[in-house]
Amino acid sequence: MIIVKGGVATAKGFVANGVKAGIKKSGNKDLALLYSEVPCVAAAAFTTNNFAASPVKVSKLHIKNKMHQAVIANSGNANCANGKAGDAIAVAMTECAAKKLWLDRREVLVASTGIIGELLPIKKIRNNIAPLVDGLSKAGGRTFAETIMTTDTVAKEFAVKVKLGSSVVTIGGACKGVGMIYPVMKAEKHATLLCFIATDAAISKRMLEEALSESIGDSFNMVSVDGDMSTNDTCFVLANGMAGNKKITKKNQEYKKFVEGLKFLSIELAKMLARDGEGATKFIEIEVRGAKSLLDAKLAARKISASNLLKCAVFGEDPNWGRVAAACGAAGVSFDPDKTDIYLGAMKALSNGAIAKSYDKEKARKFFKGNNVKIAVDLKNGRYKATAWTCDLSKEYVAINSEYST
Amino acid sequence: MIIVKGGVATAKGFVANGVKAGIKKSGNKDLALLYSEVPCVAAAAFTTNNFAASPVKVSKLHIKNKMHQAVIANSGNANCANGKAGDAIAVAMTECAAKKLWLDRREVLVASTGIIGELLPIKKIRNNIAPLVDGLSKAGGRTFAETIMTTDTVAKEFAVKVKLGSSVVTIGGACKGVGMIYPVMKAEKHATLLCFIATDAAISKRMLEEALSESIGDSFNMVSVDGDMSTNDTCFVLANGMAGNKKITKKNQEYKKFVEGLKFLSIELAKMLARDGEGATKFIEIEVRGAKSLLDAKLAARKISASNLLKCAVFGEDPNWGRVAAACGAAGVSFDPDKTDIYLGAMKALSNGAIAKSYDKEKARKFFKGNNVKIAVDLKNGRYKATAWTCDLSKEYVAINSEYST
Repeated sequence: MIIVKGGVATAKGFVANGVKAGIKKSGNKDLALLYSEVPCVAAAAFTTNNFAASPVKVSKLHIKNKMHQAVIANSGNANCANGKAGDAIAVAMTECAAKKLWLDRREVLVASTGIIGELLPIKKIRNNIAPLVDGLSKAGGRTFAETIMTTDTVAKEFAVKVKLGSSVVTIGGACKGVGMIYPVMKAEKHATLLCFIATDAAISKRMLEEALSESIGDSFNMVSVDGDMSTNDTCFVLANGMAGNKKITKKNQEYKKFVEGLKFLSIELAKMLARDGEGATKFIEIEVRGAKSLLDAKLAARKISASNLLKCAVFGEDPNWGRVAAACGAAGVSFDPDKTDIYLGAMKALSNGAIAKSYDKEKARKFFKGNNVKIAVDLKNGRYKATAWTCDLSKEYVAINSEYST
Repeated sequence: MIIVKGGVATAKGFVANGVKAGIKKSGNKDLALLYSEVPCVAAAAFTTNNFAASPVKVSKLHIKNKMHQAVIANSGNANCANGKAGDAIAVAMTECAAKKLWLDRREVLVASTGIIGELLPIKKIRNNIAPLVDGLSKAGGRTFAETIMTTDTVAKEFAVKVKLGSSVVTIGGACKGVGMIYPVMKAEKHATLLCFIATDAAISKRMLEEALSESIGDSFNMVSVDGDMSTNDTCFVLANGMAGNKKITKKNQEYKKFVEGLKFLSIELAKMLARDGEGATKFIEIEVRGAKSLLDAKLAARKISASNLLKCAVFGEDPNWGRVAAACGAAGVSFDPDKTDIYLGAMKALSNGAIAKSYDKEKARKFFKGNNVKIAVDLKNGRYKATAWTCDLSKEYVAINSEYST
């Protein structure tokens, strides 16, 4: 596997674009389109929030279709809590894209992000569908990544190439979402995290679903900004087969390599989200090892990463690692506190439940001054491990989220 | 039931005190004692955090004793993550109080609050036990409430009188805890919330346990400041029987009246914690009604009350009530979004999952400017309801928690 410069339109046959439709108050680009020259199989994971947005409801129906060829997405309005009117608007978004692209609406997937509880002005989308389609291009992948941004400060793209037999398969993706981020997407399924992945691999819909399911649990579902699960989290993967590899239809060696690439890409994109978390000044990585089960490892890593108190301590460069222990203990997982170790980078702070002999408060203080704070907890209760990513909680986070709708 | 001025030493036979032992860096009072002239039955609820602090472990053993007569508590150090040394220190705290009071150490309960992962200097406690005991008085109830404070800005006390037959029973309490507050105390059991309740009611230990269990689920376990469950949360109730009422030994009318008083007191103390939440500028009350079960109602109310995004919106007086819907949907409870209503005070904002006709953004803006933000969600899925309390999330919260240990 190699990392290449690129994004959602890097794989063969994919083009993308983004335009200003006037949905965002800022006047920035807010309507995006991803298109494949040839039909794709697609897999999706959606938020498990019971208050799912209209585009989630519509895409959940459309994903049942055998083939897909486009994804339309808007930023600036989540199209959520709009009742049946919202559902009709999400359908209309797929319809107007389908019409212009000569597709059936069920071949089009849809995603939205932005304010909840305001009607999405469909007219603005209709009025801008022509320039959106007409401007589709390879270079438009970058525009796509910029267009889906809300409070994001940088566009997030990543791409890898994987060799399958004699063919080279490209997997590229773009994502957004730096607030209301605590995804539990189903396949396991949660964030408003939106992620769009496009690959030219030849793979069956069934295997693509499996691959997404395998990769999402260790990537997007392990990122957290604020612990608030969104109504709109969506991850789409489209595969159009243009790489010409022998089609993956079972869990063979090629499948494994494909999943490895997809997971690597997903983890890199997930880390980008945490790094750009609303108001973030530091990146935090929490590894929990020695857990009795994978679920325990994930639950503990996620619980620690969601601790407001730990995140404040990291912001303030205050070596208050006791908050790691408290959050770990609150995760509801099986372990013996009197056997537990906590590491700040390479330094052991807690050893068998008590302050480690090697612990040095001045070194801890220095460690917390870094921009990448990596904390590990060893539960010594089994062989499973998991990693979660988050950012610090700053005054800027509060500022951003005190005036979101105004 | 009537409300009276008072606190932990208002009931007959109780005295209290607090002194400066030098545990707190600020030099404020940090060692507190509650004492009953006669033996009491006691009930307790403790954090469900698996990383329970040493005083929690020791009190869990001591509470099994039939009778109790004193509670020793310190602020400034949580005595948590200190391994076996911490356990020995917690035992030593009960021992030195017991010795001076001519009690068995198992008749003494213990609680701590403060920094995690630093050894509690037992010598400072030993050195100050004599003035602590010598200064016990009725007026010392107030001193007790002040002594247990950490980041609290006001002392929290409350008392009620309940008529049981021809006797008047007093229930008084003091509590602290405005950060690391997301209690799930067992009896249900969570916060570092510390709560000490003293009553002169005559009641069996068994009935006192039942009464605590009934009251805690609707009071302390429904308060949240930051969603971080503490290692030290503890609630003690001591009953010394000096009111002379006919002893409550079963769930009769007198028991019901006693529970009513205890629950009222507990709810008032819980609301005081939310109002004084770290950095709080506003008080938030979330009522969820129409839930399928009581657990659903509690889960949803608590999940909404723990939403960082909603709390930021309230801080910024930004009427972004869509975040209520998102948090409710993330609670994992049973309801149909298309039937759900959301009220901002008296105004319906969401009606059957869509923006209500009566919704007026300017009125919503005005509503969010109030100091008491009461939001209700009607799930229209059953007959159960629950109320949770929290505060807004301010820049000051971040400031307080970025420099806690330093």
